[in-house]
Parts: sequence; structure tokens; C-alpha cells
Amino acid sequence: MTIDNPSALETDLAALVGNKGVIPIAEAQPMLEEWRGRWHGAPVAIVAPSTTEEVSAVLKSCADKRLAVTPQGGNTGLVGGQMPTNGEVLLSLKRMNKIRSVSPLDNAMVVEAGVTLAAAQEAAEGHDRLFPLSIGSEGTCQIGGIISTNAGGVNVLRYGNTRDLVLGIEAVLPNGEIWNGLSTLRKDNTGYDLKQLFIGAEGTLGIVTAATLKLFPQPQEKVTFFAGLKDAAAAVRLLAKADTASGGAVTSFEFIDGPAFALVVKNIPQTRDPLSETYPTYVLGEFSSGRKGLLEPVVEAFLAEAIESGDVQDAVIAVNETQANALWRMRHALSEAMKPEGPCLKHDVSAPITCLPDFLRDAGAAVSTHCAGARVIAFGHLGDGNVHYDILCPENVKNEDPDGIFDTSVRQKIEAAVYDVIDRYDGSISAEHGVGLARRDEVAKRKDPVALSMMRNIKSVLDPDGRMNPGKML
Amino acid sequence: MTIDNPSALETDLAALVGNKGVIPIAEAQPMLEEWRGRWHGAPVAIVAPSTTEEVSAVLKSCADKRLAVTPQGGNTGLVGGQMPTNGEVLLSLKRMNKIRSVSPLDNAMVVEAGVTLAAAQEAAEGHDRLFPLSIGSEGTCQIGGIISTNAGGVNVLRYGNTRDLVLGIEAVLPNGEIWNGLSTLRKDNTGYDLKQLFIGAEGTLGIVTAATLKLFPQPQEKVTFFAGLKDAAAAVRLLAKADTASGGAVTSFEFIDGPAFALVVKNIPQTRDPLSETYPTYVLGEFSSGRKGLLEPVVEAFLAEAIESGDVQDAVIAVNETQANALWRMRHALSEAMKPEGPCLKHDVSAPITCLPDFLRDAGAAVSTHCAGARVIAFGHLGDGNVHYDILCPENVKNEDPDGIFDTSVRQKIEAAVYDVIDRYDGSISAEHGVGLARRDEVAKRKDPVALSMMRNIKSVLDPDGRMNPGKML
Repeated sequence: MTIDNPSALETDLAALVGNKGVIPIAEAQPMLEEWRGRWHGAPVAIVAPSTTEEVSAVLKSCADKRLAVTPQGGNTGLVGGQMPTNGEVLLSLKRMNKIRSVSPLDNAMVVEAGVTLAAAQEAAEGHDRLFPLSIGSEGTCQIGGIISTNAGGVNVLRYGNTRDLVLGIEAVLPNGEIWNGLSTLRKDNTGYDLKQLFIGAEGTLGIVTAATLKLFPQPQEKVTFFAGLKDAAAAVRLLAKADTASGGAVTSFEFIDGPAFALVVKNIPQTRDPLSETYPTYVLGEFSSGRKGLLEPVVEAFLAEAIESGDVQDAVIAVNETQANALWRMRHALSEAMKPEGPCLKHDVSAPITCLPDFLRDAGAAVSTHCAGARVIAFGHLGDGNVHYDILCPENVKNEDPDGIFDTSVRQKIEAAVYDVIDRYDGSISAEHGVGLARRDEVAKRKDPVALSMMRNIKSVLDPDGRMNPGKML
Repeated sequence: MTIDNPSALETDLAALVGNKGVIPIAEAQPMLEEWRGRWHGAPVAIVAPSTTEEVSAVLKSCADKRLAVTPQGGNTGLVGGQMPTNGEVLLSLKRMNKIRSVSPLDNAMVVEAGVTLAAAQEAAEGHDRLFPLSIGSEGTCQIGGIISTNAGGVNVLRYGNTRDLVLGIEAVLPNGEIWNGLSTLRKDNTGYDLKQLFIGAEGTLGIVTAATLKLFPQPQEKVTFFAGLKDAAAAVRLLAKADTASGGAVTSFEFIDGPAFALVVKNIPQTRDPLSETYPTYVLGEFSSGRKGLLEPVVEAFLAEAIESGDVQDAVIAVNETQANALWRMRHALSEAMKPEGPCLKHDVSAPITCLPDFLRDAGAAVSTHCAGARVIAFGHLGDGNVHYDILCPENVKNEDPDGIFDTSVRQKIEAAVYDVIDRYDGSISAEHGVGLARRDEVAKRKDPVALSMMRNIKSVLDPDGRMNPGKML
């Protein structure tokens, strides 16, 4: 602590976590700004414990003082869950950044909540293992954050969401009690699987301080392709065929709608379309195998057959890692490519895979009704039924306020229309980004009331004073 | 209902579910006997609704009458969870046996709780898909039961436990409310993942009436081998090498200790040892691939290398399905092979895979201390860290009472010693069989008190009157 006049609260917290563990609010601006500027933090204090025991001491003290607590990892969340908007104590996990152990023979490692995803991936790689979760923010986001948001990303099709990659959890409960659930076990039927509640809870039930993560053998061969297709229905058929042809070796199956890909070519320097013509939609696919030399002939034959049958119009296979990286760069540049086009209304939805073509058709029609000329930029993880469905203003409309896309009533109408279509296909209005502040009201309105009531009951019994990240999710 | 004098309760229930849905207690003996005769049912009535709405009506009525309810599937459970031992209403799901839908392109199917596991596997196969869960009782056990016990089995290493194979759940809550959580989605981050609470809850939170199950492409090639090894540590090394050599294609990796295998050869007619000598321990492994012709050379090379390095002493590879089935028959005959040897004290434990050799050594020593000559029969799913650790009386002791193995005090000492060793290795005292009546007290004694307290809190808020399968698990 370097401030001259610590508050009484800061002094109390420093007694628990040391001076280094209290961060003066005035010096913590990056922690108090959501990265797109949508939400701003107004905490009563910022504390960064370095051990589980210190987290416990802080939560006990907050319980005594009846203070609410918002945990924060890398501050990369997209729905505001990490922001202390209402006078909470901001509890940063960034100093809890130890890799506690890696056991390659058990295919497991124990890492603390503040380890970045990239550092966790590297630790696994150092033992010739793979931790497969991969998302755009992996250099900054932290393990506690990916667990609390059940992060997804580009490898879900093969390896699952964060939920599928966690064997055990250590968490501190609202009263400061430490729950050591750091199991390495693959099988344990001695009661309710409590870790599942903390995964995706956005910090509303307690603070995740460490986790046992599942590891996998490193893939030995990857084959990446990029294909132009005539429509989304062809992409759905292509996924099933890719799965069958490769014997389940599809690792990623990303879908990029034509207008989305056009923006990448237009706005990202040094990008060129690897195909000679443009197509209504595109797929970026990756296969991987634990052994070398198996996949390339399979992927070649599969794509030749798909071109023959008309499911694919044209395709390229990356001949080396450089080419594969170039293809992936186009996929990862999508958000960047949209920025010069002005403000954007974002949705992160999912539906059963076979319903996606109909969702795209119906949602597109609904958007046009409410705003003629609005540009739909759709892309995402087709293999998981997950579409990032973003809407840009018509090209002739200029609007620089990030929250001011369209006017409010049009924005609300478009959002409601998109979510109505998703509801019709039994989809989810938040596939991987979570609820946080951004979608709390919409979830409250649309989610099954029986499920909402169970959620509230669970929250009420595990966090009876409602002090854990209040106002988020529920 | 065919009884002449139905009770008032039976008459009330028949008004809700029809005469066919009320089963006279006198005619229901098979439902009231645990299959090994360990527990006996004493219900106040037996009801078998045929729809979710009927289950709801029954639970509403039981709530009004303050009656407890025990759900039952195929009555194959090993810990007594399915037995109404204390005047509950026995609610059988067997008439809810419809396959509601199969969508091969979504890799998902919706089935009712009373569908047998074998029927679910067949429904998937009929659409050229695999539902991979496989356990000994699959012809009889039901989907509701495998979900409520989070069943494991021989394919967990590749495909996971039941928990990993369920996309959504429909359940009726204690007050009769229907929760429709039958999602087909791979990604949905709109709140706590409530289905996880019902999976493995042994009916203590409500009644699972249907589920969306994950499907997979059918494997196109399987290679099965049987190997003699010098010890369990060699088996652990062999698993890691098998995983690497095959690029993660190991589907099963079953371990059979020497004395266990000797009983199969001795007691199961027409069994012959496929190896020419006996060994201290054995592994039965299976690899599978989504494409033909890939695995056999890999497995041959891998085993040759393992014999070279001394991890394997001798091995055979099944040359056709008949041989593979013969190898699997030996594995599945283990329980049968123990029967002629007299009563048996069973444990179903798990530990981190790398700790299994030490567990076997320490537990063996502890058992000998308490009963010289007791025969340890250890086998199980090494790839999941799961050992079925069974103990037979010394050969010269005759004892025909199934509960009467050793005397009670010796039995208790052995059990405590085995569980103490498991605790030392951060293992679980119930890997896949569950808690039920059999292990409730032991779990209460040994499980982390913070976890137990969270479990009780969750139970108290979701089943406030404690009427859902009371006395089981908690």
C-alpha cells in the first residue's frame, strides 16, 4: 500500500494480507474499467490476497463488516461480471499465481486461480501434455475467471467447455470457510458434485482459489482447412461428414458467414482471401490426431468428396503451420475487423446444431424488419451450436457512441427479436459469455421459472447474506 | 391394480395414474428385494406412472399427504439407494420407457427414465451412433438409475461417466413442479448448471423423468489385448504408453490382479488362460478408432516395445471379435468367479492413478494385519483410478451367511483400514457405486465437513421436508 491516507478498511485489510495485498483505488484504473468501457468499477477497497488463507481471512472480515465482494481475474469478461459497480470490495486473484503441481501420469495439474490461461497451457506443455482450453483472451484471462464463467472457445467440440476440464476445485465460502475440493479423481460418487455449482457461478457463491485441471496427450498432427460453402445447411452436413470421415478427429469447426469474412479481408491488413471467389459462407476446420501421418490423406479425400457432392464449393488445406496460422488469424481477427465499421450490437447464442440454418434465416428476417440495412455479422463455433450474432448499423449510418447503436428502442426490439427466435429453437441467449450484468434481466425474463427458482434457492442457502458478487447473474 | 382390497392410498394413487399404475405390494416381490438380498423394501404403496405429468401428480399428492418417496429404476443398484426400507411410496419409472427422439446430426437423443441402458444403446445404434456407457447390468438398469447414480463402467476412460454423457434433464421436484431442463445444447451459460445436482443425487432432490443423452460416431475398429505384468506399477506405466502410442485411442484399460484372474480360470467353465504362464497381474485393454485399419499395427508395435522394456511379460491380441469377446467375458465373469469362494467384503474405491500401486501394497498389508490369510481380489478400471477391492475369507474358513463374512468386529476393522489407506492417498471410498444406505455413515464420517455441510444445505432448500429418498446418501 503506497497511499498516504489509507481508509480504515484498507488498514484492516492490510493487516490480513500485508501492504502489498492492498491496492490503492487511485492506482487501479485498469482494474476498474471493463475493456470496452461498458462498465466502471466503484469499489470500497481493492484487495489482492496471495494465499487461500488470506482469501479466507478477507472473506471472514467482509462477513463481519457485512461487505459485499466481487472477485476479479484478468478483467477480460464480456458481461460485466468482474466489475464492482456498487461499492463492493474488489478481490483480485492476480497474486495467487502458482502452479502447485503437474502430474503427467495422472493427466492432471493443480493451479491457482490467478494463473493466466496461457501460463497454464505452458505448464502443461512443459510436461508434454495439453490443456486444451483456448480463447482469444488467453494471454490475460485467469483460471479463476475461466472457471467462474465456464469459458468455451475454439476447442470445445473435441475437449469440452471449462466444466469438462476441471477435476476439482478449492473455494472460499462467503463466511471464510475453505472448501478443499481439489480432487484429482476421475470417479467419486460420494455425494452431490459441488464443484459444478462453482463452475459458471460468476463468483456468486464464493471465491474459487485453485483448481485441478484435466490434461491430455499433445496432438502430434493437425490438419487445417478453409472452405467456401453455399449456405449454413451445407456446413451442418459437412460437420457430420467430417466427424465420420475422420473418426471423431474434428477439433474445431468454425463457421464464418460471408459478410463477416468480407470485413476481415477489407479491414485487416495483409489478409487475402485464400479462395479465388467469394462464397455465401465459410468453414474453418481443424482435425488433430495423437499420431503423425494419419490425417492429411483423410482430409483431402473428405474435401474432394464434399466438393463432388456439392456441400463444399472450394477449399484449401494448409500445407504447413505458417499457413494454418494465417487461416486462424483470419478467424481471430473477426472482432477487430468489425471495429472500423462502427458500433455493434452483440449476441452470443446457441441452438441445436441442426437448427442453426433456420435460426440464421429467421433472425436475419427479424433484424431487417426492425432496421432495414442493418448488417448481420454471424460467425462462431458451429460444432458447439454457438453463434456470435453481431449486428452493425447500416453502412450509411454514422454513430460513434459504443452504447448508442441505433436508438434504444430499435436496439431493444432487435435484441428481443433475436432472443425470441433463439427461444423458439430451444436455444440459449448466452452460450459462452455468461450473464453478469449484461444479460441478467433478459435471463430473468426468459429462463424457465422453475430453474430460476432453484437457482435463487441455492444462492440463498450458500450465500445467505447475498454478499457474493451481488447483482450479477441473479 | 388387481388386488381385492386396495388401501385408501392405493385408491388415491390409482385415481392419478390409472389402475395399471398401481402395483399391489404382494405382487411386487422382485422390486422389494435388493438382488443380493442385502436390503428389503417395506413401502406403503407402489406406483408406476407412465408420463411426466403423472409423476408430477403423484409427487403433489405425496407432498399433501407428507409421504416420503423412493424412486426405483431397474433395481440393480449396489448400495441400497433404490430400496424403500422405511415406509416410503415406491415410485417405479419402468412404465416411462419411451425413446422420445434421436437426432444423429445433433448427436443427441431424448429418452425417458425407464428405458433400459441396453435399449438406449440400441436406439443410438439404430441411427448409426454410439451411446458409450456400458456396465454389467445394462440389460436391466435404467436411464433414470444410471443418472441418479452417475454410473461409470468400462468406457469411462474414453467417454466419461454418466455425468459427462448427459446434456439435459427433465425432473419432477418434491412439490410436484416439473423442471424441463431437456436441453440439447452443448453450450449454455445462463446460470448454475442445475442438472449436475440431480446427476448422482440418488433421488434425494427429486425424480429424474427423462434426459437428453450425448451420442458419438460408432467406432469402426477395435483392438483388444490381454497382457501379463509383473506388478501394478508396470500397469500404470503401460497405460501412459498406450495413450501416447495410440494418440489417445485407449477406450478401456482394465486391471485384474493375479489372484482375481486365477479364480476366473478356476471357477468359470470353459475359460482358459490365453497366456502360457501365470503373472502377478494382468491388463485387459481396448483401443478403438473411428476409421478402419489404423490400430492393429500400432497396438502390435506398442506391445512389442512394452515386452522389450519389461513393462509387459507376455501378451495376446485378439485376432477377431470372437476372441475379443472371450477376453471380455473373463473380465465380466469376475463377480461370478468369486461366488463359489464364499462371502465377500466389497469395496469400490478410487485414487489418483499413480497412487494405485501404493494403495494396493498398503491396503494389502492392513488387511493381513486384521485377518491373516484373507484373500484380496482386486480388479477394476485402472484408467479411471477405480479399483474394486474385494476380500474373501481365508480358504479354510467356511461361512455361508452373505453378511457374515469374518465376524463383525474384524469386518469393521478391515473396512476402516482400507478406507484409511484410501483417505491417505486422497481417494474416494465410493468411486462409482454411490452412497445409498451402504456407505452413508462412512461418508458422513470421512468426507470433508465443509462439503457435507454444503450438501445438507442444498438438500434442505431443494427438499425442505426431507421426503425425497430419506436416509439415502445424507
